[in-house]
Amino acid sequence: MSQPPVRVAIAGALGRMGRQMADAVQDDARLALAARFHRPGIVGEGLLSRDEALAMAEIVIDFTTPAASADLARVCAGRGGPALVIGSTGFDAAELADIADAAKTIAIVRSGSFSLGLNMLVGLVERAARALDPDDWDVEIVEAHHRHKIDAPSGTALMLGQAAAGGRGIELETVARRVRDGVIGARPAGEIGFAVMRGGSIIGEHSVRFCAEGELVTLSHAAGDRIMFARGAIAAALWVAGRPPGEYDMRDVLGLNN
Amino acid sequence: MSQPPVRVAIAGALGRMGRQMADAVQDDARLALAARFHRPGIVGEGLLSRDEALAMAEIVIDFTTPAASADLARVCAGRGGPALVIGSTGFDAAELADIADAAKTIAIVRSGSFSLGLNMLVGLVERAARALDPDDWDVEIVEAHHRHKIDAPSGTALMLGQAAAGGRGIELETVARRVRDGVIGARPAGEIGFAVMRGGSIIGEHSVRFCAEGELVTLSHAAGDRIMFARGAIAAALWVAGRPPGEYDMRDVLGLNN
Amino acid sequence: MSQPPVRVAIAGALGRMGRQMADAVQDDARLALAARFHRPGIVGEGLLSRDEALAMAEIVIDFTTPAASADLARVCAGRGGPALVIGSTGFDAAELADIADAAKTIAIVRSGSFSLGLNMLVGLVERAARALDPDDWDVEIVEAHHRHKIDAPSGTALMLGQAAAGGRGIELETVARRVRDGVIGARPAGEIGFAVMRGGSIIGEHSVRFCAEGELVTLSHAAGDRIMFARGAIAAALWVAGRPPGEYDMRDVLGLNN
Amino acid sequence: MSQPPVRVAIAGALGRMGRQMADAVQDDARLALAARFHRPGIVGEGLLSRDEALAMAEIVIDFTTPAASADLARVCAGRGGPALVIGSTGFDAAELADIADAAKTIAIVRSGSFSLGLNMLVGLVERAARALDPDDWDVEIVEAHHRHKIDAPSGTALMLGQAAAGGRGIELETVARRVRDGVIGARPAGEIGFAVMRGGSIIGEHSVRFCAEGELVTLSHAAGDRIMFARGAIAAALWVAGRPPGEYDMRDVLGLNN
Repeated sequence: MSQPPVRVAIAGALGRMGRQMADAVQDDARLALAARFHRPGIVGEGLLSRDEALAMAEIVIDFTTPAASADLARVCAGRGGPALVIGSTGFDAAELADIADAAKTIAIVRSGSFSLGLNMLVGLVERAARALDPDDWDVEIVEAHHRHKIDAPSGTALMLGQAAAGGRGIELETVARRVRDGVIGARPAGEIGFAVMRGGSIIGEHSVRFCAEGELVTLSHAAGDRIMFARGAIAAALWVAGRPPGEYDMRDVLGLNN
Repeated sequence: MSQPPVRVAIAGALGRMGRQMADAVQDDARLALAARFHRPGIVGEGLLSRDEALAMAEIVIDFTTPAASADLARVCAGRGGPALVIGSTGFDAAELADIADAAKTIAIVRSGSFSLGLNMLVGLVERAARALDPDDWDVEIVEAHHRHKIDAPSGTALMLGQAAAGGRGIELETVARRVRDGVIGARPAGEIGFAVMRGGSIIGEHSVRFCAEGELVTLSHAAGDRIMFARGAIAAALWVAGRPPGEYDMRDVLGLNN
Repeated sequence: MSQPPVRVAIAGALGRMGRQMADAVQDDARLALAARFHRPGIVGEGLLSRDEALAMAEIVIDFTTPAASADLARVCAGRGGPALVIGSTGFDAAELADIADAAKTIAIVRSGSFSLGLNMLVGLVERAARALDPDDWDVEIVEAHHRHKIDAPSGTALMLGQAAAGGRGIELETVARRVRDGVIGARPAGEIGFAVMRGGSIIGEHSVRFCAEGELVTLSHAAGDRIMFARGAIAAALWVAGRPPGEYDMRDVLGLNN
Repeated sequence: MSQPPVRVAIAGALGRMGRQMADAVQDDARLALAARFHRPGIVGEGLLSRDEALAMAEIVIDFTTPAASADLARVCAGRGGPALVIGSTGFDAAELADIADAAKTIAIVRSGSFSLGLNMLVGLVERAARALDPDDWDVEIVEAHHRHKIDAPSGTALMLGQAAAGGRGIELETVARRVRDGVIGARPAGEIGFAVMRGGSIIGEHSVRFCAEGELVTLSHAAGDRIMFARGAIAAALWVAGRPPGEYDMRDVLGLNN
């Protein structure tokens, strides 16, 4: 731990996530907050220009927009660094291609969710589904969210379903059971079921149950607040420092892709 | 506890539940197995005729058929006892009228489920729903059963939903939400949601969640094996001994109807 | 709902809980924020003197200190109102006597925790413990809190244990089992067990399990954030408006003391 | 699936587990019940001598005694097969050496528990503990068993603790926290806590919680009945058929040792 701290720049430093990331970097002795920047033309009060900021950092943490992140990736690759931790979501194909291209030159960790716990859960579900015979073990996924959430099942629940299906070498769409109501008959082997609860201010609960004759294995995650995303981004920054070029995700950071 | 044991006769003594009840009565020092009987014409090997059995008992425990139970109630009322614990299900209106009529003369406990835990849960749910403001507290019911169950939600889940709706003074049908799939919008206040899991050999799990801003109350029951029904019937037999005539249910036995 | 809003004054208005209560009152159409006051000599910027504030309100919500609350109770009783909702904790015997004395003249709701869910849980546990035979149903209480909590079991866990013991008509101290480690022998009937978890930032989870042969009933509460206390105080204010003099608690507000 | 069924012999065929295994083998189309044997001198009624039985089988499933299993391993190695699935427990060092020696010639799966779910849980806990930083993630293990269990924490809970400690590269004994009662101070990072519940007829529940700021990951197993052990032994028999010599355990069968 006598290594010098990793120098981190924060992109989108005036956004909610940017401010939270700057706080988290400052609170962590393994990191140094080297620079903050926002959009071109917004400087002062501790904000540098993008070029100045990139010159001072080994890693940039970027929770901004797809267009801004893709542009940043191109620029960083063009100048041979720094490495990137990207948490923006909603990329189109061209933007993804830009990032993949940049990853030939620099190391990039990109993820739709930086929750270490959720990424861990996804990895464990995939592994359990690969090992447990689908004829014996029924997979059921249940999620609960606050009353304001408008879609169901949650994107995370579907991601967990894909992990289970992937572990079994099948497509989720062919086995997903999203509704059970009325006289539905016995449960077919291989089905992956979803159940949904909505109420109060639940931030997010997900459980994946593997149900066999006489035993149950349940793998769960509960989210309490958004600080978990900052912690995950910091873990990614520490992990990616000094890595060879490539596009990585949180399962690499967690060592689950080996 | 120095009272003499309550003398119990078992109806339908050759059936699965009859045999289990006889074992449970014999294992309980507060009860004495006074007689066993089955159908008319089947006697011997420890079985008495119905008339002989009724003469020896203070209580009859009857898990048979609706027709047999209704007939037994008439006969017991006609001779002024014994009291009855009835666990048969599926009565038609005429049979229910017969039982109600008999209950003017003798004490009868009748229930669709003798699980003390489930009856307790129903009572607690009703009480919590009465006390917690529906604008603040969202009710969600989740149940899990084995893969062979063909209907959803379970009858018990619906009974719990009725208890919650009853506590709020509304009809379940007007607020039940049985399916959530796709873009469904925010959850309306007052809704009672159902979620269903199927897998393995789960005997029966039910949870009722009251979800508010910043807190959750969860009331749950898990069934492990059918011995719980025998224990509930024994509790009913002990409770009904010496009661005045009337038709009672397990919530009376549990003291939840006060 | 066409009634005029209940006029509420906030004591200790500059404290954290006072500010949160003022926000919550303003957000609720059934209430009107009539006045805010803090300590003698601190007025202006929307703060009135105590006397001015009391003259404008039907109810005062007071999360301050034991001494200040006891004094406020005396003053309100002396002038014949307003009614009080007191959330201060740590009263000594003299202060409690002052409050009890004031409650002969005005209505006072006083509670150590305004969480509606926790108070509900306590009431349900007491009721279930009263109904379920201790020879058949083993009571176990498990709680989880964040890593910074220094005592175990939590005060709330012990309060739940007292509710269970009270329902059974015994003293908790005579049956509490706070440690199980090593070869401890079979569990005695009647014992009330405690289990403790500590980790992360868990705000507070409590479960009370009633365990019998073949079935389990679990009653749980999970706390997410402190907003729940403000909601409970508002429920108390709405309930106490217009009540006869007396000292009440949250179980009265929830209708659990009938 | 058009392969011929694997021919299985059952050792200790008159014991409870032997009978259950024979039933399970007969119910599984991928296996054929080739022979049953018990102790020397007990033949007839479908029982063969050990030599006859070994000659007819590719795999022997053996839930007997340490001495009998060690002897069987020597004999099978001496004749070049069949392979073994051993579920006996309580081996001494000499017996373990015999089995290790035999495993140079034949394939042997040996395990103290054939529950696939529990073995899976152990593997997932080890993996999660390896990936999640002990400074951020607190590990807590909670178990519940029936009222007759005399020791605490359960052997399985300790095994899960060892898996977590092993994933972190430390000894469980140095970090285990088995009791929390009174004023205990804040939780040290790195500690692995145990919590115990006892009640009713709970067959066995184990949960391992990883608790961080703002999120929780919970990995759980619940046992319902002993049929799970037979299913695990069958999975081991199918897996070991045709394997090279060696001593394997259930984590090999589940593919968790890669």
